[in-house]
Amino acid sequence: MAATFALYRYSMLQNDLLLQAARGEQVKRPPVWLMRQAGRILPEYRAIRDRLKDFKELVTTPHLAAEVTLQPVELLGVDAAIIFSDILVIPEAMGLPYEMVEKRGPWLATPIRSEQDLQKIHLANVDSDLAYVAEAIRLAKRELRQRVPLIGFAGAPFTIFAYMTEGSGSKTFSKAKQVLYQQPALAHQLLQMITASTIAYLKMQIAAGVDIVQIFDSWAGILSPTQYRVFSLPYLAQICDAITEVPLILFAKGAFFALEDFAQLPCQVIGLDWTIDPQTARRQTHYAKTLQGNLDPCALYADFDTIRKETRQMIAAFGPQRYIANLGHGVYPDTPPDHVRCFIDTVKNWA
Amino acid sequence: MAATFALYRYSMLQNDLLLQAARGEQVKRPPVWLMRQAGRILPEYRAIRDRLKDFKELVTTPHLAAEVTLQPVELLGVDAAIIFSDILVIPEAMGLPYEMVEKRGPWLATPIRSEQDLQKIHLANVDSDLAYVAEAIRLAKRELRQRVPLIGFAGAPFTIFAYMTEGSGSKTFSKAKQVLYQQPALAHQLLQMITASTIAYLKMQIAAGVDIVQIFDSWAGILSPTQYRVFSLPYLAQICDAITEVPLILFAKGAFFALEDFAQLPCQVIGLDWTIDPQTARRQTHYAKTLQGNLDPCALYADFDTIRKETRQMIAAFGPQRYIANLGHGVYPDTPPDHVRCFIDTVKNWA
Repeated sequence: MAATFALYRYSMLQNDLLLQAARGEQVKRPPVWLMRQAGRILPEYRAIRDRLKDFKELVTTPHLAAEVTLQPVELLGVDAAIIFSDILVIPEAMGLPYEMVEKRGPWLATPIRSEQDLQKIHLANVDSDLAYVAEAIRLAKRELRQRVPLIGFAGAPFTIFAYMTEGSGSKTFSKAKQVLYQQPALAHQLLQMITASTIAYLKMQIAAGVDIVQIFDSWAGILSPTQYRVFSLPYLAQICDAITEVPLILFAKGAFFALEDFAQLPCQVIGLDWTIDPQTARRQTHYAKTLQGNLDPCALYADFDTIRKETRQMIAAFGPQRYIANLGHGVYPDTPPDHVRCFIDTVKNWA
Repeated sequence: MAATFALYRYSMLQNDLLLQAARGEQVKRPPVWLMRQAGRILPEYRAIRDRLKDFKELVTTPHLAAEVTLQPVELLGVDAAIIFSDILVIPEAMGLPYEMVEKRGPWLATPIRSEQDLQKIHLANVDSDLAYVAEAIRLAKRELRQRVPLIGFAGAPFTIFAYMTEGSGSKTFSKAKQVLYQQPALAHQLLQMITASTIAYLKMQIAAGVDIVQIFDSWAGILSPTQYRVFSLPYLAQICDAITEVPLILFAKGAFFALEDFAQLPCQVIGLDWTIDPQTARRQTHYAKTLQGNLDPCALYADFDTIRKETRQMIAAFGPQRYIANLGHGVYPDTPPDHVRCFIDTVKNWA
């Protein structure tokens, strides 16, 4: 039933290049979108954001979240929208609220460091506590009028764990890693709670209308390969096993050492950061996955000719099939929109 | 002549395990030292540091720099001392002073972003402007009384470039990378000036008495493999070619993609961060180099049994020959000294 429904839904999209590429189907050109495309690069985004009290007001106000979700489709011409939200809505729904401190990043006042701390949180009740995300998805989906697919997303369990135990961003996440080394059983309990909450959250997003989901393991790169296999991969595998309704993109920044493991997961797409050589990635994933990425975000600071050259070299290196063009990280806020458009148009003109 | 002199000097050391391992000679056990071993992990260091105005006073006062250089030899029992200093003394000697801002890291007030900025700096006159480092080395060498070798060091040209153009530390170094993409010719000019200054600086350190040098390419991991080959490797090669008097250790954090390139450089030792699998590193460096590293610094938060187990697994994975035990990054300031000693003693008890 799920498959039939999905097929029906996909078939209504005017541009479903992203889903075709994710499913491994032949495409006329690679699809293109950008991580953080709905955000500060667009003056139209900043105009909305500046009217509000804070970042969270934008995340929790469905019609505004939907509006900024659509902006890059209309203003940049990308082949997909991604719902505007934040990965830290999951800790909040588990009882650990976050703040987004200007210029300093996320802040969680009472990080989890003990069994007692663990007692204070709970599995996310996504239907009640994250209803605003479902509503934003429904609104965005309606306003998209089937032009392009809508991407849902969540943080990977280890990345969410890192914020919940560290209490903030960090260069080293040494407090989070201290929990892994000193209290591995506690770490696994918390990771399992995050995983269950995340699966429920992604299922809710799919029910609300997203066509594909991406998992962001933003802090994969702070773990050793051994620890990654113990504290991240098993939970990613649970998510991949559970999400059968739509394709899944796994983006793990800095996890160059895990590509062969990712190839074994039942996910459709593997996202790559810019340190990964395209041909090495093809080989290490046994030519069995669609790959996404991975232009250095800083390449968009270059002149138009260089952007075109780098973009075309990237597509040639990956090959235009089983491939989704993107950056290797979220677009940096000070990137000129014209340069972003140059990147997008170069992909769209690939023939 | 240089080789004879070096041989004479080495032969006087009571413990020259580090140099034996670096030269690829058979050792009775692997040598061990820690990046940032002279620093905040030791209360004895903090006692000296707290008496001073700032970090730079310690760096520029030879008898104090020498004193903290010796502390880990006496208090922890490591197989080598590393001269206490900072990689940013090179930009300063080139005319771009730095400050070390408490809890925020390095700050360079007038970063290099244009040809005009480049006119304001010059090649380092190491003999006059970095005489305090030579003096600290002479004092440390004398006080070491040939117990263990003394390591000299410098930043890799790209890493120094990153600070000189960004003006501070950064998660993305996007301003530094902007220079690479927008003004590659300017970047190469600056990199060449840094390289020439660094070679002169290392030669001065060797003349003052260091037995081996390490190059820190701390920000290697922010570059794509292609950019690394253009903007870092050629300058590392110049340094490796120029330093023939003593062995050279190259530590490039995040440069997993460059190991095969490093294997081609005329350096003796390659340092590895904790994301690199030991056997993969052996294979990618064609079993032709001594390897150094690479325990996750956070592993030292674990209990003694875990530290022993992880350390022994690491040595077994690298093999005890052509190997220098170390962490995969500088030791974190909040690591208990007893845990550091447990790591060191486990290596020393290897048999």
